[in-house]
Amino acid sequence: MRKDYLLTPGPTPLPPQVQEALSRPIIHHRTAQYRALFKRILSGMQAAMQTKQSVVMFTSSGTGAMEASVCNLLSPGDHAIVILGGKFAERWQALCKTFGVAVTTIPVAYGEAVDPEQVRAALKQHPEAKAVFATLCETSTGVAHDIQAVAAAVRPTSAVLVVDAISGLLAEDCRTDEWGVDLVVTGSQKALMLPPGLAFLSVSEKAWMLIEQSKSPRYYFDLRLAKKALADDDTPFTSSVSLVVAMDEALKLILEAGLPQVLQRCRLMAQATRAGVEAIGLSLFAKRPSNAVTAVNVPAGVDGKKLTKHIQDRYNVTLAGGQGEMAGKIFRVAHMGYIGPFDILIALGAIELSLLELGGSVTPGEGLKAAQAVIGNLSPVGTR
Amino acid sequence: MRKDYLLTPGPTPLPPQVQEALSRPIIHHRTAQYRALFKRILSGMQAAMQTKQSVVMFTSSGTGAMEASVCNLLSPGDHAIVILGGKFAERWQALCKTFGVAVTTIPVAYGEAVDPEQVRAALKQHPEAKAVFATLCETSTGVAHDIQAVAAAVRPTSAVLVVDAISGLLAEDCRTDEWGVDLVVTGSQKALMLPPGLAFLSVSEKAWMLIEQSKSPRYYFDLRLAKKALADDDTPFTSSVSLVVAMDEALKLILEAGLPQVLQRCRLMAQATRAGVEAIGLSLFAKRPSNAVTAVNVPAGVDGKKLTKHIQDRYNVTLAGGQGEMAGKIFRVAHMGYIGPFDILIALGAIELSLLELGGSVTPGEGLKAAQAVIGNLSPVGTR
Repeated sequence: MRKDYLLTPGPTPLPPQVQEALSRPIIHHRTAQYRALFKRILSGMQAAMQTKQSVVMFTSSGTGAMEASVCNLLSPGDHAIVILGGKFAERWQALCKTFGVAVTTIPVAYGEAVDPEQVRAALKQHPEAKAVFATLCETSTGVAHDIQAVAAAVRPTSAVLVVDAISGLLAEDCRTDEWGVDLVVTGSQKALMLPPGLAFLSVSEKAWMLIEQSKSPRYYFDLRLAKKALADDDTPFTSSVSLVVAMDEALKLILEAGLPQVLQRCRLMAQATRAGVEAIGLSLFAKRPSNAVTAVNVPAGVDGKKLTKHIQDRYNVTLAGGQGEMAGKIFRVAHMGYIGPFDILIALGAIELSLLELGGSVTPGEGLKAAQAVIGNLSPVGTR
Repeated sequence: MRKDYLLTPGPTPLPPQVQEALSRPIIHHRTAQYRALFKRILSGMQAAMQTKQSVVMFTSSGTGAMEASVCNLLSPGDHAIVILGGKFAERWQALCKTFGVAVTTIPVAYGEAVDPEQVRAALKQHPEAKAVFATLCETSTGVAHDIQAVAAAVRPTSAVLVVDAISGLLAEDCRTDEWGVDLVVTGSQKALMLPPGLAFLSVSEKAWMLIEQSKSPRYYFDLRLAKKALADDDTPFTSSVSLVVAMDEALKLILEAGLPQVLQRCRLMAQATRAGVEAIGLSLFAKRPSNAVTAVNVPAGVDGKKLTKHIQDRYNVTLAGGQGEMAGKIFRVAHMGYIGPFDILIALGAIELSLLELGGSVTPGEGLKAAQAVIGNLSPVGTR
């Protein structure tokens, strides 16, 4: 009878249409049927990524597409600028180091967003930088960076802008072409409402020029091979067929709802979550909070690691704790993809009761009331 | 009402238990529940791979684990020996080239198996070779190489033996530890009866020494990161959770049936297929045919590309054609995983009728009769 509730920033819950599609008999990937499907998926991803540029798919986690960005754009000895501020931004730095790329970092305190002026200054100081690596939503801190402003700083230079939108896409607005983002990276298990296992990359013309020049070794993630296969609506290597079949259903749901509506629903859920946690008397960790995930400071006197464990063990509600040095200091509630507005009440209900049970001073129901008020402001909620 | 029949060497059909598991609500991967599942999967893979060595999983196609083998074992300038003989063996060569590894190739004609003496001679001539790359079943030609004999040649040297068993594992015997194979690579969408999207690698102690020394850049496929995460029954990056959940069901089926029985069923189906195609008057392409897939020469006077297309379009039976330079010259019938003995009758029925319809001289039913006789020799078939 146990009922589980998943509110983590990836994997996120699957719509029933996606679950059904996953269970279908498998099809072969070197067939006209699959190629038509794959073409439709990529066209749907162009819409989701707000780009007319080519979109490439990898069978990997999002990190695979991050690696693809680094090793296809840059050669050993090249220079890059990395905007820091969280665990996932640091992955850009680690990837650059792996491929012998010299990195200038723009330090950003955890919980804060980058000041675009710092990007402008770094590019002025390092005109040799071939790429700037940024993050749309830093999943580890719940911060949304101002990618529009970052893009405005990068666009006039010769550098390409690469944005990790793995948890951000379809939760935060990401106007790839309009803003001039050269590479956008995303993954299947966030707002795309799929299991993990697929990664996507949009690639601008400016970026393809660098890709042809890169001397870094790559094979599985070689964008030149991917581009060649793309001409036949194909992939160089066997793709995760079941996930592609299910993605057809997920994209149908997203595109039928409409991009503005999907983004608006995330915004609403984020507002409801923030209002709820603040009404409980808790504070937000992110200075510029994202619409994908809300990071909340664990109140003084409560053991943060115990808190998420308690919420899990007693109420079967899965939230995310803090990662790395943030472990025990914050917890995170996701609100994207197939998490709906009323699911926020579940998260807040479990948080309120668990804080109370672990000795916090909470008036149960205050968070619920505040979130409900936000949800009620905009209707009909269910259709968004 | 259309009914499809899939007899390709990957993806192979999914058992209903696997389909059902794929459709379950998703679970989070950083939980005790997932770690217990992942531990069980890897222990099952140790049994399937006949090894007590560590088994590592990647969310990728099999090629990802092939790349992991090359970049983790070897540094630029290192020397390796590659046994050729087909499209997939050539992938080892391409991967070595990508990572700046000097390669001595052992040429093997398409359709033939390597002579282990050639391996011995190459190792004698190149004692500096750090690795030998081989293929258990060359999917593109239907050849099974004698890995036991190859391993006997490599074992006394300082080189490690890496075997692509992507389509071979669980169809051909592969006694990893007993024969002394250092790295065995496999993928989910063959005899493991899963969709594509997971790759596995068994790694010997001898191999771990090289892995620590390699200077090749790698991140997503870094075996050092994978080993570290393995200590916590975890992966460095988000894995394809749904496939792992489904794999629990697939491994249950395999281990309950028993490894010898699974191998015996493939052997039986391979024998039935060979008997059937020979009774039709066709010849086998592989001199040392594998138990995973049978490659058949397209008879003179029949257009090979038209043949597989006709079989597909008219009878909804999906067989594989020839790849690369073999296109139109051979077709391939798979018999592994959840393809059962009587499914061979479907393949042969469609082949007989299609040959007839395309102007071949065939007495319909001869292939069916011959295959049926083989299947009937060993019973009860259904339980194997």
